[in-house]
Amino acid sequence: MLSFSIAATSGRARAGELVTPHGIVETPAFMPVGTAGAVKALTARDLRDIGARILLANAYHLMLRPGAELIAELGGLHGFTGWRGAFITDSGGYQVFSLQSLRQLTEEGVRFRSHIDGSLHVLTPEKAIAIQESLGADIIMAFDECSPHSASLDAVTAAMERTTRWAERCLRARRRSDQWLFGIVQGGVDAELRERSALALQRLGFPGYAIGGLSVGEPKADLVRVLEVLDSSLPEEKPRYLMGVGTPEDILEAVARGVDLFDCVLPTRNARNGQLFTREGRLSIRNARFRSDDRPPDPSCGCYTCRSFSRAYLRHLHVAGEMTAAILMTLHNVAFYLDTLRQIRQSIRAGRFEEFRETTLRSLAVRSLEARSSVVRT
Amino acid sequence: MLSFSIAATSGRARAGELVTPHGIVETPAFMPVGTAGAVKALTARDLRDIGARILLANAYHLMLRPGAELIAELGGLHGFTGWRGAFITDSGGYQVFSLQSLRQLTEEGVRFRSHIDGSLHVLTPEKAIAIQESLGADIIMAFDECSPHSASLDAVTAAMERTTRWAERCLRARRRSDQWLFGIVQGGVDAELRERSALALQRLGFPGYAIGGLSVGEPKADLVRVLEVLDSSLPEEKPRYLMGVGTPEDILEAVARGVDLFDCVLPTRNARNGQLFTREGRLSIRNARFRSDDRPPDPSCGCYTCRSFSRAYLRHLHVAGEMTAAILMTLHNVAFYLDTLRQIRQSIRAGRFEEFRETTLRSLAVRSLEARSSVVRT
Repeated sequence: MLSFSIAATSGRARAGELVTPHGIVETPAFMPVGTAGAVKALTARDLRDIGARILLANAYHLMLRPGAELIAELGGLHGFTGWRGAFITDSGGYQVFSLQSLRQLTEEGVRFRSHIDGSLHVLTPEKAIAIQESLGADIIMAFDECSPHSASLDAVTAAMERTTRWAERCLRARRRSDQWLFGIVQGGVDAELRERSALALQRLGFPGYAIGGLSVGEPKADLVRVLEVLDSSLPEEKPRYLMGVGTPEDILEAVARGVDLFDCVLPTRNARNGQLFTREGRLSIRNARFRSDDRPPDPSCGCYTCRSFSRAYLRHLHVAGEMTAAILMTLHNVAFYLDTLRQIRQSIRAGRFEEFRETTLRSLAVRSLEARSSVVRT
Repeated sequence: MLSFSIAATSGRARAGELVTPHGIVETPAFMPVGTAGAVKALTARDLRDIGARILLANAYHLMLRPGAELIAELGGLHGFTGWRGAFITDSGGYQVFSLQSLRQLTEEGVRFRSHIDGSLHVLTPEKAIAIQESLGADIIMAFDECSPHSASLDAVTAAMERTTRWAERCLRARRRSDQWLFGIVQGGVDAELRERSALALQRLGFPGYAIGGLSVGEPKADLVRVLEVLDSSLPEEKPRYLMGVGTPEDILEAVARGVDLFDCVLPTRNARNGQLFTREGRLSIRNARFRSDDRPPDPSCGCYTCRSFSRAYLRHLHVAGEMTAAILMTLHNVAFYLDTLRQIRQSIRAGRFEEFRETTLRSLAVRSLEARSSVVRT
């Protein structure tokens, strides 16, 4: 019921199609983050309008609230949320390993306390699969151990090896055949470990591979190096998903190294904090110089926010703490990400991705210093 | 540039048209509250879609932030907010008199401290008009003294008389002729004071009359009594605006006594607190019995929220603190108010308003006990 095909390449970048039971996703694709079953400050209608085709939801959050059984009873994620496009769920590994003081790790799985009410829970590879089968996303993820950027080489190695063993248990635990299960490559910023992880997962055999552990504070050079290694060690014909990354610049670098799928909280979270992504870099709407600026946030953007409202109005709403500010700015930021990915796909199909990447990186850099200084000020 | 005409009556209820430079408003009409220039959790597009034609904004909030001069510079409220329909602004009287400890009242006006930063400001009738002329709403309000429900008869009398003197100063202070200025009837719950206020304002002569001071905690019987008195002492042919009131039930009672315009924060504020208005009364979405309820919030409602989402999903989003809950529930509540007013207008034009009022009040009462008990529980 799912398939992936590559229609065009430009350098190492690939443009393709991911066919799911809930629609076709053109790749490279950005998947807005709907952790608890909704993208913060947006509705399903908004997301459809701006061209989202697949959303990310999180098994960790949904198992705790409202519970995977309840969602299954109400028709799975699609029935429950009213989102008719595709869904991908993360397994909860990343979230559980972010709960530093709340967890206890064994070979069997992880015991942890809910961040909501402190109640005790266990996640194992088998349970992570059962939960994700109840949620019913089109693509689900293996349960992985995610090491922090500060971990020692020994710790990163152990986590990578356990992730491989857990991946095998995930494969064996599956009951549904209408979902795709992706393995997750770990191994920190060590090229050899990453390669070993990628090869071990391929021996198990997955329809797609995710790259985990790269949104945990590593320098950009490390990100690029890991992507280079994986580009040559992951199978060409399978989709590749870089988890939790990143800025528009990061996405351009990853597409240049053969990545197909992305998710990131930056466009949604930054919008709520007053930061807008534009074709000339980021813009901090609180900045006093926007007080009477009647231009749209991004003059070359066609989203509802940019067609209808000025920087001065958005600044006012944000400073006044009006929820409508978060709505309008989230709408723009997600539309910006989706548009950027659309342009990336077009440039690959036209065989001129490298040119597009260079032009875009230059353009995004225009305001980068301004944005950094205004973030410090606010 | 503005006009008001009554097209049909049913008992004392009237259906008419308020023609403004920014579109025709069919009356009786509900005006969603956009205090700071945006209706909380909605966009202009949402409001237009569900049939809003006129919004209320507040001179007090806007003079403090972002400032009336800035809004004037950016094209007035219409240019600044992107709302192309009509606007009405309140003068700030009600808000200033809500700042109990922050104000100092003289015949000249009121000195008060901003609730935002404690800075000192003065509002006089002349200044309230100047600010509202800068904001540029279609309809503006006289600057009034609003007494609390607990005030003595002497205090209420003095406030009403001052409101009349200030109304005269407001009329004299006007510079623009393309806005309508409404006088505000005061006098608390005293029938004789209300009548004196209405007659005194008519001697000054306004194109419309607002009824102030009735959203301050008075019993329903007092509201009805004041409306009865004013129905016979205000001129038939002029629009009547009941400020800040109220529940759907209150609105039905007021329409039955010849009121044409309404605003109230209930649909927006209650939505953010998880309370939905339905054709069977209010529903508190946090209630555990909605946990797996797959019905729409209001099965007979045609709004986007009711067409697309279940009570179970809205409950989950609300409990999880997701902003999307506030968006979807605000959209429904405001759509519910606008639909109710649409039905009121139709019933008046069909000459069967009294029947509609009785049926609707019975239907709204279905859940009223449930709603009250669930509010206590949550």
